[in-house]
Amino acid sequence: MTQPPISRFPVAAREELPADLAERFDVVEEKSGFLPNIFAALAWRPDEALAFFAMHDSVMNKETPGLSKADRELIVVATSAGNDCLYCVVAHGAVARIRAKDPYIADQVAVDWRKAPLSPRMHAVLAVATRLAAEPAAVTPDDLASLTAHGLTQDDVWDVGMITSFFALSNRLAHFAALVPNPEFYSMGRTAPEA
Amino acid sequence: MTQPPISRFPVAAREELPADLAERFDVVEEKSGFLPNIFAALAWRPDEALAFFAMHDSVMNKETPGLSKADRELIVVATSAGNDCLYCVVAHGAVARIRAKDPYIADQVAVDWRKAPLSPRMHAVLAVATRLAAEPAAVTPDDLASLTAHGLTQDDVWDVGMITSFFALSNRLAHFAALVPNPEFYSMGRTAPEA
Amino acid sequence: MTQPPISRFPVAAREELPADLAERFDVVEEKSGFLPNIFAALAWRPDEALAFFAMHDSVMNKETPGLSKADRELIVVATSAGNDCLYCVVAHGAVARIRAKDPYIADQVAVDWRKAPLSPRMHAVLAVATRLAAEPAAVTPDDLASLTAHGLTQDDVWDVGMITSFFALSNRLAHFAALVPNPEFYSMGRTAPEA
Amino acid sequence: MTQPPISRFPVAAREELPADLAERFDVVEEKSGFLPNIFAALAWRPDEALAFFAMHDSVMNKETPGLSKADRELIVVATSAGNDCLYCVVAHGAVARIRAKDPYIADQVAVDWRKAPLSPRMHAVLAVATRLAAEPAAVTPDDLASLTAHGLTQDDVWDVGMITSFFALSNRLAHFAALVPNPEFYSMGRTAPEA
Amino acid sequence: MTQPPISRFPVAAREELPADLAERFDVVEEKSGFLPNIFAALAWRPDEALAFFAMHDSVMNKETPGLSKADRELIVVATSAGNDCLYCVVAHGAVARIRAKDPYIADQVAVDWRKAPLSPRMHAVLAVATRLAAEPAAVTPDDLASLTAHGLTQDDVWDVGMITSFFALSNRLAHFAALVPNPEFYSMGRTAPEA
Amino acid sequence: MTQPPISRFPVAAREELPADLAERFDVVEEKSGFLPNIFAALAWRPDEALAFFAMHDSVMNKETPGLSKADRELIVVATSAGNDCLYCVVAHGAVARIRAKDPYIADQVAVDWRKAPLSPRMHAVLAVATRLAAEPAAVTPDDLASLTAHGLTQDDVWDVGMITSFFALSNRLAHFAALVPNPEFYSMGRTAPEA
Repeated sequence: MTQPPISRFPVAAREELPADLAERFDVVEEKSGFLPNIFAALAWRPDEALAFFAMHDSVMNKETPGLSKADRELIVVATSAGNDCLYCVVAHGAVARIRAKDPYIADQVAVDWRKAPLSPRMHAVLAVATRLAAEPAAVTPDDLASLTAHGLTQDDVWDVGMITSFFALSNRLAHFAALVPNPEFYSMGRTAPEA
Repeated sequence: MTQPPISRFPVAAREELPADLAERFDVVEEKSGFLPNIFAALAWRPDEALAFFAMHDSVMNKETPGLSKADRELIVVATSAGNDCLYCVVAHGAVARIRAKDPYIADQVAVDWRKAPLSPRMHAVLAVATRLAAEPAAVTPDDLASLTAHGLTQDDVWDVGMITSFFALSNRLAHFAALVPNPEFYSMGRTAPEA
Repeated sequence: MTQPPISRFPVAAREELPADLAERFDVVEEKSGFLPNIFAALAWRPDEALAFFAMHDSVMNKETPGLSKADRELIVVATSAGNDCLYCVVAHGAVARIRAKDPYIADQVAVDWRKAPLSPRMHAVLAVATRLAAEPAAVTPDDLASLTAHGLTQDDVWDVGMITSFFALSNRLAHFAALVPNPEFYSMGRTAPEA
Repeated sequence: MTQPPISRFPVAAREELPADLAERFDVVEEKSGFLPNIFAALAWRPDEALAFFAMHDSVMNKETPGLSKADRELIVVATSAGNDCLYCVVAHGAVARIRAKDPYIADQVAVDWRKAPLSPRMHAVLAVATRLAAEPAAVTPDDLASLTAHGLTQDDVWDVGMITSFFALSNRLAHFAALVPNPEFYSMGRTAPEA
Repeated sequence: MTQPPISRFPVAAREELPADLAERFDVVEEKSGFLPNIFAALAWRPDEALAFFAMHDSVMNKETPGLSKADRELIVVATSAGNDCLYCVVAHGAVARIRAKDPYIADQVAVDWRKAPLSPRMHAVLAVATRLAAEPAAVTPDDLASLTAHGLTQDDVWDVGMITSFFALSNRLAHFAALVPNPEFYSMGRTAPEA
Repeated sequence: MTQPPISRFPVAAREELPADLAERFDVVEEKSGFLPNIFAALAWRPDEALAFFAMHDSVMNKETPGLSKADRELIVVATSAGNDCLYCVVAHGAVARIRAKDPYIADQVAVDWRKAPLSPRMHAVLAVATRLAAEPAAVTPDDLASLTAHGLTQDDVWDVGMITSFFALSNRLAHFAALVPNPEFYSMGRTAPEA
């Protein structure tokens, strides 16, 4: 089969990008070895792209005792899988495998997070996150209290809500644009790290 | 009954806000006569607040032949009602009544948009938006084509997707924080404009 | 947009009504200042109209310590909102605002009754009513017991079930006929009563 | 197992009934050979009972070219099965078998009406009725037009809506009261009529 | 109406069957007085037919203190009703009536197993079985523990899972082939056994 | 985290297996390089194990012009993903990658088969298979006709139904036993074959 294009919408040429966006893209590409397609797909709307990446970084690039970077990626994987979002499952699954140093955990969480071999804390986190993603009116004060009971701070609890909410946006945009994952993501982090 | 607090999370005092946020809040308050609670509730997280309002303005404050400001508000009302989000239904319902100069349309769209007295164009828009909101994987290329068939430009089509996606975020954040609408919103725009 | 007609079915002329129905309509119009469209829409079927209003009055026009008239209207609002029934949400929302002397409560209950500022008793009532409305086989003896635990008598409990059941009928009939609310209902009771 | 009582609510003694209700019960019992439990269960609320039976008779005891008495019973069976209502499936299944002179049709319609050996007209009727029962906001003008296209009059179309709506009430009341079918209903009409 | 054929796929003539299948069919027909249509419908695929009946007999023809043959049939009835499978509800409903010596229980379990007059043990069994049938990922270790708490052995627990899983297959195959129940099944076991 | 055991039920020791099963296991292990856990988990029930593998092989080990071995594996991946079945998604995803010689297709089909780069024939196959898996009563004669319209023979059509039905069983059994995939499956076939 012919592979589909990256997006249903225009993909801006790199040299047409505003300076601030172009600079950011260079940094990402340098670090990852390739430019994730979400950057390319958002570039034709520079204002939204800048706000999108600012919001993303604000909640994802943070390591706290209650919610590690790997934990944050697993929230993305679990809620995006609930939305059948290929881009987010594949791209953030790759990051999750690398950050968790576990070649299996992303698939386990994507397909059936309830049986995934995670801590009680992370089961509580994913229970709240997937509820907020799928049936937001059903989230209760008890749900938030279950998170602090597992040691999350008020900031961590907010982050659980904000990450889930941000990827509710991201999943829908990816479906709307039929965003395609870069081939590199599929196999990243699939080798068990040496002991 | 005692009214609940504005949010389940801290509400930053006005004088503690970073200058850029404080300035923005002043402008909004000046214009609306009161500060919508979403501003107060997001202020404790200034980076996310700035990104949130930038993204909001980028897709909501735009008037195009294919998608007026009133039309954009009705997308918010229809998709937020599908998520049972009180803040967004009440606040954006008020704005929709004012922008559409119609005291009934917000309730009609919130409760049963399918029977609401709207143009075929807006019925197509709301059909796609509510599908993307509720079942994003079910959106097809035919859905997008149905919008251009009604005269929307490619930018308008993207805006339908982006508005819906942004309020998927917003609805979930409002539920998570139990955000409460300002009392002013409930009755705004309920008087039919004079002929 | 042109407003749609009151109903998809014939609307009987007032002078063609049987005497008992005509008399009843006069009383209602006198009291409300206008004739709610449900009366006009049912009039072409006088036997069903009479039975419909008899059943309505039997459970709605009753004030008990366990279930006030305002409480009964809120059951209608919550369950009708679950069925996306514009007529019932708008008309009974108006009555609820007036009976509860609260300009906000109808919208709060219609959009997200779980977070509405109501007593624990009314939360229990709405939990049972919305379950019966949406998933009747899931109602258990424990549900009924939760109501008596909050002080409802056996008659009150039956009324919760009967009101919910009656509006399951009413909501479906309103959808089937595409019944349109009178414009008056939208703004009734929206001013906070003076202290 | 011990059989459960007829209803979770009081069952009025026959001699305590108001005269009009008592008379009606005598007629039914005379005709059927036993008193269906719905009569016994409603008797403690005479006003509602009278309205209930009036509404029932108005739409069920009618034979038209577009909608026979047997057809009306099958609407009840199909929509009540969708609500998992034992009383209505068993009692009206019995009546349907007798009126349709078909010992199989009630079970066929209750379990999977889509594959039941019925006319295209009745498939259209049951498609609309089950949609109205399960998802009332999804009924469109095309649904009603599909019925007149099969020869139903405007009165017949209304009856499809009214029967479905009435049993939406009836199913919920039966679940709420845990109404038990009379044993006689289970085996009525199960012998194929002689040729 | 003309009755539909037994299956949408070819029905092999009896004399064309492989010897082992033919022999089995003779035994069944001898015992039941007629050949259930599932045998006829599967015969064109002898390997699958043999495996199907072997799996069926392995879990259905077993009587244990924790799970009688009648109990096993009721698992089939409850889960098949959840899948709207006419063949399985009617055929196994008949067997359930006979094995349970109860003319009402099959209909009670098919339409609303939650209110059926069964032991707490069987309510636990049907709760787990219907959950596994409808939402398999939601089955938890607590579900399995609820069964051993009611006296089921580890083999009985497995049988609950295996019966439910086998009829998940069977229900889908019956829908796919539009398998029709033999008329004999509808009325079998409907007379109460003499005391 | 400690990895969970292979199954919630006993795992028979290899030397305790009946001869026919032991022989089969040796063949599989020889061919795959390891014994897939489904074999180990079923071994304690030899009769069901034999029937299970016989049924599996009858529909999976077949290459026809209308339905290749790779196509059959993708039916398993799509329907098992709909049931959130980790074992089947991971194990059959691995086989699908190898048989289709495509390192991406299994993830694409598991997460969002509608947008996967497949032929119109395979889109039709997966549309019918996922409908049968999720909502079996909704499969119509038109669904089966859509498959023959794409060149499938009557045997191929049956296989689509039988594969889907068989994995409805398999997915439920895997959830019930909490069956764990062998680690080997996760990375098999992830390298693009050389041109």
